[in-house]
Amino acid sequence: MIQQTRHPIGITDVTLRDGHQSLMATRLRMEHILPVLEKMDKVGFHSLEVWGGATFDSCMRFLNEDPWERLRIIRKHCPNTKLQMLLRGQNVVGYRNYADDVVDAFVEKGSEYGMDIWRIFDALNDTRNMRRSFLAVKKAGKHAQGTISYTTSPVHTIEKFTALARELADLGSDSICIKDMAGQIFPRDVFDLVKAIKDALPDMPVQIHSHSFSGMAPVAYYAAAEAGADVVDCSFSALGWGTSLPPTESIIGAFKGTPFDTGIDIAGLQELTDYFDDMVIEYKDIIQAKSLRIDPRILMHQIPGGMFSNMLSQLKEMGASDRLDEVLKEVPRVREDLGYPPLVTPTSQIVGTQATMNIIMGGRYKNIIKEVVNYLKGMYGRPPGEVNPEVLELALKGEKPIDCRPADMIEPELEKNRAEAEAKGARPGDMDDLIAYTLFPQVAPDFFKKREQQSKEAEHAQVVAAAVGAYQNALHKSAARRAANGTAAAVAASPWATAGRMQNMGMA
Amino acid sequence: MIQQTRHPIGITDVTLRDGHQSLMATRLRMEHILPVLEKMDKVGFHSLEVWGGATFDSCMRFLNEDPWERLRIIRKHCPNTKLQMLLRGQNVVGYRNYADDVVDAFVEKGSEYGMDIWRIFDALNDTRNMRRSFLAVKKAGKHAQGTISYTTSPVHTIEKFTALARELADLGSDSICIKDMAGQIFPRDVFDLVKAIKDALPDMPVQIHSHSFSGMAPVAYYAAAEAGADVVDCSFSALGWGTSLPPTESIIGAFKGTPFDTGIDIAGLQELTDYFDDMVIEYKDIIQAKSLRIDPRILMHQIPGGMFSNMLSQLKEMGASDRLDEVLKEVPRVREDLGYPPLVTPTSQIVGTQATMNIIMGGRYKNIIKEVVNYLKGMYGRPPGEVNPEVLELALKGEKPIDCRPADMIEPELEKNRAEAEAKGARPGDMDDLIAYTLFPQVAPDFFKKREQQSKEAEHAQVVAAAVGAYQNALHKSAARRAANGTAAAVAASPWATAGRMQNMGMA
Repeated sequence: MIQQTRHPIGITDVTLRDGHQSLMATRLRMEHILPVLEKMDKVGFHSLEVWGGATFDSCMRFLNEDPWERLRIIRKHCPNTKLQMLLRGQNVVGYRNYADDVVDAFVEKGSEYGMDIWRIFDALNDTRNMRRSFLAVKKAGKHAQGTISYTTSPVHTIEKFTALARELADLGSDSICIKDMAGQIFPRDVFDLVKAIKDALPDMPVQIHSHSFSGMAPVAYYAAAEAGADVVDCSFSALGWGTSLPPTESIIGAFKGTPFDTGIDIAGLQELTDYFDDMVIEYKDIIQAKSLRIDPRILMHQIPGGMFSNMLSQLKEMGASDRLDEVLKEVPRVREDLGYPPLVTPTSQIVGTQATMNIIMGGRYKNIIKEVVNYLKGMYGRPPGEVNPEVLELALKGEKPIDCRPADMIEPELEKNRAEAEAKGARPGDMDDLIAYTLFPQVAPDFFKKREQQSKEAEHAQVVAAAVGAYQNALHKSAARRAANGTAAAVAASPWATAGRMQNMGMA
Repeated sequence: MIQQTRHPIGITDVTLRDGHQSLMATRLRMEHILPVLEKMDKVGFHSLEVWGGATFDSCMRFLNEDPWERLRIIRKHCPNTKLQMLLRGQNVVGYRNYADDVVDAFVEKGSEYGMDIWRIFDALNDTRNMRRSFLAVKKAGKHAQGTISYTTSPVHTIEKFTALARELADLGSDSICIKDMAGQIFPRDVFDLVKAIKDALPDMPVQIHSHSFSGMAPVAYYAAAEAGADVVDCSFSALGWGTSLPPTESIIGAFKGTPFDTGIDIAGLQELTDYFDDMVIEYKDIIQAKSLRIDPRILMHQIPGGMFSNMLSQLKEMGASDRLDEVLKEVPRVREDLGYPPLVTPTSQIVGTQATMNIIMGGRYKNIIKEVVNYLKGMYGRPPGEVNPEVLELALKGEKPIDCRPADMIEPELEKNRAEAEAKGARPGDMDDLIAYTLFPQVAPDFFKKREQQSKEAEHAQVVAAAVGAYQNALHKSAARRAANGTAAAVAASPWATAGRMQNMGMA
């Protein structure tokens, strides 16, 4: 440690995206984001992750908020700090591959509204699924961050990951992210990987994203810094640790005085720490106590926490909880058969369900789920390793897997959807709404309807408020007249107070 | 990291002492300890901390268990691993200074029953309060671990701590522990401190004990290892993190493959991880959710979590919660006036209460609490720094502080207590009971009474069981006779089954 020269580490604070996505099902509402933006903007973070991932979907589906508006408001209140987001490559912010025109339009609009750093990722590390996103981000003149989805397997070696980093650099990466979504990276391994990437690409900034589930992430960040990493992802303590990320305050503290000192004043963070602590109380019903704790079992069976609980519920539903051990042993075998996909959405569900089937249904691959068939067809992208030819034959029955990028098979989607979208409430000619509808056709119409309802109500409230204001103004004048006439009068309500309340309610 | 040569780190697992003391008020019962002892003994830990601290008191006060018996049982089931405990120097396992004969007898009996490593500590780092314990441990031929109570202040410098380490070495320390009870040590600082101690005492093993409250402890352990530390304290994840210690599994994982690899197989820990996870469910009513989380505020105001909540409740009781900020600012001033005592029991309570008084009672030191007077008299030991002469004058009103070791003023206690102890239920001539009574005269008599009651009940149960056994035996014989005579008979109960149940109930 003391041997090293000073190399300050940047902090990307993810409280407003991955923090609440990990711990409270992406339910953080704008009313709780707005009051802290200006304070967060002043801390000196490398960037703020505030959008992308599940936030776009959740805004419309659960919060009745316009996701684009959320980005615009955050941008307005954070003029000094770079904004960052997670883009799921060709899946954009959804759960399937979309056509290129959707990717292009999404990145163009997001960039226009202020997104600076686009972290582009693919669950299978198939760069074909990321290429279009890179082109779009570069065209918008923004920062494209290429992502390595970290996992462990015989085909996921330091050499392979370094080759992937080179590929991402060739696509135009302005930086590389090592994304350890399961929180399973060993400090030793992240050290070696960062070192290898830095040796291969000496000028490439490297950022680490690890979850706290195994309890090793703070040490992994430290070891990564020793190997030359530049930025780490953290979340304020109230929405940190457990299935979320290492706490922002703890990591800033842990690096203090070391060669990796972030330069951020810890004492200055207390107001934010207190704010988020009080804030999460409002969400206590949706935060599961279990997800706040660490679970070291990922280190023992290499199965991410979320996947483990899914398999456990599946088995319970089938009345087969006693077969968990067999299923746990089947998971790595299925994963091997499928060419070692990283265990992250959606491949974690695919592998977990097929493993359960293999144990419960009286024989391996007696019953092959539709998603495994599609996976083997190449509809998610290229498997990282060789797939088992016997399983391939059983699943595809002689059909050949596609050898192109899955999105090559999708026609442009936006214009085709326009009439339908507008019939279902999208604003005529509005690109934001058309993208939202194309990404989430089941969800967007309901949101459009509620938005219209709200806007009518707000208009109505404004008319009423104006009338009330005029009336109170008249009262005020008459009270002033009475006072001038020597009559004492308590003037409880004033038009200014009314205006203040309206502003608080977001109406002004 | 890669520059360093292999230096395996030992793990002291503290689940059975500090783990449950930190998170569940020292309430872990022997029935939950017994089933895991043999598994824990096989892991390959450097040592198991299983006794001392608050366990002696808690066994008698809350659990109705003989604390000496707990140690003997643990020793019996852990033949291969060193047992370790926390001894509060001249306070033994209590909360005041005791006479030397109590220290001597306690260490002699504890050693006889199997204690190997005695961690000897004093809240003020006054080695005069530790010397007698060292003599007793060395006389018993056991391992004496000298302790540095870590804190931050202008008088607690690397140089002073290193000088303390030398003093502890002169007293006969077989190893040195850096005890960061508030979880506030920065990785940079622990690195420098370990380095300095290793420079001063190259052959002295150094052990680190830090709590997880600030979230920095895993990195602190790693940095300490880089500086040459030899052993770190951890607690299984179910009773780790938060106000407790870094999780055993996470630290073993974090060190895997590094030069500090513990050599312990992580996968082999799963049975223990699962066991403790299930076990804590039985104690869920006494585990506070808040204490399981981290709280980084210690990094902002240097006030340990426990002390902070105490002050907050005090202020609430006084209806003065709104004055918290003033009290928080007063704490460091009072601490300075008192010569910077480390903020640990009992000095944290003393400083906190006096600071509250100074704010609430209309002026600084208008009202000086009895404990501050005693502290300034030297009744707790020597303050680490200069005390404020004005406060000294106000408190002692011209009286001189003592210049000897506080325990020098205490006559031998044991024999003097014997008649009284036996009148209150201690077994005649029994040294274990006499020590227990002398340490906790308010608590022990109740425990003695309950123990006698239990032993009568057990005796009664044995008589009944023997009678039942004889009866069943007769039944069995008659059934066997009937069977021999061609009569089918279901023999549901057998004397062996009864004996088995009695053994399970701890009666056999």
